[in-house]
Amino acid sequence: MSNGAVCIATYRLHDDKADFQKKALGIAVGLTVGSWTDLPEARKAEMEKHLGRVVSVEAHEPENAAPGERYADIRIAYPDVNFSRDLPALLVTVFGKLSMDGKIKLLDLDFSSDFVSAFPGPKFGISGVRDLLGVYNRPLLMSIFKSVIGHDLTNLRDQFHKQALGGVDLIKDDEILFENPLTPLEKRVEACMEAARQAEAETGQKLLYAVNLTGPTSKLASNAKRAIATGANALLFNVLAYGYDVLHELSSDPEISVPIAAHPAMAGALYPSPHYGISAPLLLGKLMRLAGADLALFPSPYGSVVMPREENLAVQAALIDSALPVRTSFPVPSAGIHPGLVPLILRDFGSEVVVNAGGGIHGHPMGTAVGGHAFRQAIVAASAGVPLPDAAAQPGNEALKAAIELWGYKQ
Amino acid sequence: MSNGAVCIATYRLHDDKADFQKKALGIAVGLTVGSWTDLPEARKAEMEKHLGRVVSVEAHEPENAAPGERYADIRIAYPDVNFSRDLPALLVTVFGKLSMDGKIKLLDLDFSSDFVSAFPGPKFGISGVRDLLGVYNRPLLMSIFKSVIGHDLTNLRDQFHKQALGGVDLIKDDEILFENPLTPLEKRVEACMEAARQAEAETGQKLLYAVNLTGPTSKLASNAKRAIATGANALLFNVLAYGYDVLHELSSDPEISVPIAAHPAMAGALYPSPHYGISAPLLLGKLMRLAGADLALFPSPYGSVVMPREENLAVQAALIDSALPVRTSFPVPSAGIHPGLVPLILRDFGSEVVVNAGGGIHGHPMGTAVGGHAFRQAIVAASAGVPLPDAAAQPGNEALKAAIELWGYKQ
Repeated sequence: MSNGAVCIATYRLHDDKADFQKKALGIAVGLTVGSWTDLPEARKAEMEKHLGRVVSVEAHEPENAAPGERYADIRIAYPDVNFSRDLPALLVTVFGKLSMDGKIKLLDLDFSSDFVSAFPGPKFGISGVRDLLGVYNRPLLMSIFKSVIGHDLTNLRDQFHKQALGGVDLIKDDEILFENPLTPLEKRVEACMEAARQAEAETGQKLLYAVNLTGPTSKLASNAKRAIATGANALLFNVLAYGYDVLHELSSDPEISVPIAAHPAMAGALYPSPHYGISAPLLLGKLMRLAGADLALFPSPYGSVVMPREENLAVQAALIDSALPVRTSFPVPSAGIHPGLVPLILRDFGSEVVVNAGGGIHGHPMGTAVGGHAFRQAIVAASAGVPLPDAAAQPGNEALKAAIELWGYKQ
Repeated sequence: MSNGAVCIATYRLHDDKADFQKKALGIAVGLTVGSWTDLPEARKAEMEKHLGRVVSVEAHEPENAAPGERYADIRIAYPDVNFSRDLPALLVTVFGKLSMDGKIKLLDLDFSSDFVSAFPGPKFGISGVRDLLGVYNRPLLMSIFKSVIGHDLTNLRDQFHKQALGGVDLIKDDEILFENPLTPLEKRVEACMEAARQAEAETGQKLLYAVNLTGPTSKLASNAKRAIATGANALLFNVLAYGYDVLHELSSDPEISVPIAAHPAMAGALYPSPHYGISAPLLLGKLMRLAGADLALFPSPYGSVVMPREENLAVQAALIDSALPVRTSFPVPSAGIHPGLVPLILRDFGSEVVVNAGGGIHGHPMGTAVGGHAFRQAIVAASAGVPLPDAAAQPGNEALKAAIELWGYKQ
């Protein structure tokens, strides 16, 4: 840390009048050594290694700018020596007090290699998840329970079994299913993994069940281990309700030997404003990955819960960017997905993607299991470049045919 | 939880076209049982206790509304039976997926008494902090180190001693001071508490030192106990970087027997947008208090880090509202405070407030200790209703005189 390593934060600051250069300098000094110009020279020599630096100020000042149009992208380098190597320390340093100082949004963070070295990152990542499933040549398919609240174990097992028979690779709990008397954690894992084994006997296909990890913060690791001891082979986690550091600690725990899927719950409180908060690629991409998410869910550009396409692709880019020296995280664009969108998903995200569907599976006119088949057929067709209507007309692809008749398709 | 207890969330939803009633119903059903109208009657009877309800929809639809003007305040009741009694579960239920569904902001939460009963709240609160200090008849005074990064123990102790001699009741660490080789936690506590004892010998006044509690989430409780064992008599905590549940667990720990001051670092990523995020009174008021903050810092309406006055008063109201059956939290409006603002602070917040200053103490022309005296003199004057210029003219109040000459005053 004494080698001058820095982490660089990029901000967008909207202000109709501010002197952006002065503002940038104020941030660089104010969030590190506090004051600079009035320090004695001898003290400056000692303090220099702690001093933040303005890396760049890129002002966008159109002539005759309308109110609200003027902004600057400001990059500040923060010496690593000022903070401990954990995400709460970094975030409080770069966007603690500053988050409250005007219309300012945190766009990106570039970590030093020293800082990153404290983070093992995803334990499995894309290749590890593929290894667990033994699936290498196509996008994966994940399904979500139709509804879970108020359902008992029999009902949940039945829903799980139908989804598994559809040929999905992963099934995830609903993120709002917490510890409850009807389907408590261990009973739920037992029931669902039993259904997974039954389905595997029929389909020959492996399956990961991401059980929702909930409860008091200090009990999460032991809850995860209880679930794993009972047979759970994946976890779902509402990262932002607990903090990135909790995900980091869970993913770093050698006894938590299963992939973790990061749910974006609450992210909409942070990323959508152009003026405030934290950008989606940082919030749901880079930080989730650094903290150890093996799979990262984020709003798809297709459904009702909308994120613009460019922002989606930037989230994906952060999850797989080779510049970050930790394993990649599987991108899982979610919400509003039906089989007719599969060609679009593959065009936007390539084949290293998890196609994730709820209503697009359960709402299939021939039922949940056939809903899964329709997706698998769409994935085969789209991967081979076969237009969906052509694939749907082929014998054996009745599932896909019914799906695109109901929901249409985009090519 | 089977008695029909509910927690009620209030949202503001901006939308130029939506049918707000339909949208509200979609939230109430979608975030609880998933679907309703298509359920068989027998199943409805079983599921009714899980079903969310629309409490009210208050639409603001001015005639000829300009784009962006139309919104509704929507209240939804969520049955407690659906979530465990912890804040991550409640927040993910009411604002997990929904946070990403359009221009929607979470304004308020009303908890059931069942839910609240799981939260002991602040261990000390306003009256407990006053008991520790033996100060009952005036607002408290807190000071902040001028700068801390790159300073060694001698320097820190010296800064601390000067602040303590000024007659402040509390001194808090800077929130960006993390574990570091120059001033590690235990050494820092030892050095500062020694300075506190020296000052007390001169001033006869007790003092709380809120040391910044940092590090990996799983080590926070043991770090707190190490600090306390070394003599720390208060803690500062960056709640939003770790999550409310962590504060709740720390404040509920019987061995963490000192007040906790909640810092609002990162709050600006969540509260300022009119369209997204979580309102300041909920974020920095009600939830901080429920999770156990004995003192709650929030941006003052006076300084450079600005929050509108009404929002400030709503934060204060949430911290002291007698409707919440836990101890009150001491309001600490922060940033931009100098002695000339004390009458305004007392008029806005009453006497159950902590006057918190950094630059307004250290920047005093006669030095840090005199800077503290100036505030104490301002507090005496304002509490007695004496105009500051009159007080400043009295013999012995030279500190206040110099302060208002430099910074001015508001009456």
